[in-house]
Amino acid sequence: MQYLEAQLAFIRELDLLKGVHRQALIKCDSNRQENSAEHSWHIALTAIVLQEYAEEEIDINRVVQMLLIHDVVEIDAGDTFAFADIADLNAQEEKELNAAHRIFGLLPEALSQTMLSLWLEFEKAETADGRFAKAIDRILPLIQNVQNEGGSWAKHQIKKSQVLARNQYLKDLAPKLWDYAQQQINIAMNKGWITE
Amino acid sequence: MQYLEAQLAFIRELDLLKGVHRQALIKCDSNRQENSAEHSWHIALTAIVLQEYAEEEIDINRVVQMLLIHDVVEIDAGDTFAFADIADLNAQEEKELNAAHRIFGLLPEALSQTMLSLWLEFEKAETADGRFAKAIDRILPLIQNVQNEGGSWAKHQIKKSQVLARNQYLKDLAPKLWDYAQQQINIAMNKGWITE
Repeated sequence: MQYLEAQLAFIRELDLLKGVHRQALIKCDSNRQENSAEHSWHIALTAIVLQEYAEEEIDINRVVQMLLIHDVVEIDAGDTFAFADIADLNAQEEKELNAAHRIFGLLPEALSQTMLSLWLEFEKAETADGRFAKAIDRILPLIQNVQNEGGSWAKHQIKKSQVLARNQYLKDLAPKLWDYAQQQINIAMNKGWITE
Repeated sequence: MQYLEAQLAFIRELDLLKGVHRQALIKCDSNRQENSAEHSWHIALTAIVLQEYAEEEIDINRVVQMLLIHDVVEIDAGDTFAFADIADLNAQEEKELNAAHRIFGLLPEALSQTMLSLWLEFEKAETADGRFAKAIDRILPLIQNVQNEGGSWAKHQIKKSQVLARNQYLKDLAPKLWDYAQQQINIAMNKGWITE
């Protein structure tokens, strides 16, 4: 039972991600902030639906698993806004690495190693799967911010150049999604949701 | 762009599942009710972690995809408590089928068919993958109710026989998880979280 108990400890720990709130807003439930658990679900399905736009050959099942666990570290480290200062983002990196060791470390050894290396693959984005997962993590907030009339962009007075810089990542990885992103960024600009 | 637009319409629609609330309670965020989007994330990861307990040969990637979409129909049909009356459960079935056609129907044709048949496979549970997905959908609420000192069982004064009947489904599909379930049901009984 000790082996199963380690698996269950991890499953129970996951519950806490439902209480980690992001900057993104949702279209229902009084337009509240999104939490990282429901975001992880949404992004996994987004990857499945948009998989054909990957320019490189990818294994969608690995991408989905990566996206399901990519934010688990926020249980300890909290969420950092995509447009936070560089210093904040660097501090976050160390906190997240410690969190990954603690949380995936709840699992039995072999499973723990698999999860940890999948998480690191997402973080480093040096493989085709890691890069596509990261690309989807860029496009979904854009889809949501346009759906929410500016959403977290408008709330934090984000500049067009910042949104472009962030989504430029899509350019070589998913050119059709990059075309779409540019089109939407122009719409956001015309609507006044982002500034010059 | 029309094809991509159909994919995006589905992705945007998914947002609404974050506002569908279940009977299960969570351990953080003021012990609020769980929503079906974060539940779907939690259950997909639960399947990955517990896949080795499947007695039949399964394709975990299909199980994960099934679990990611299994509750999408609740956007239209709402959530029905696992221990609802049979009449309520039957009425729910038709609502969910209509919902499946409408929501997966937002997608381009081929993708729509894939999603719909995957959802039906979960509902019917006539394949090894469908059965294991369903088994995981039984064990996770049990894990959560024990974690929450009775949770929705205690709140709705559920009987031991009802919980046993529901989890007996695990018996042949994942015998080790069935052993665990029985052990936990006895604990819940001793603690007074469920009644005789």
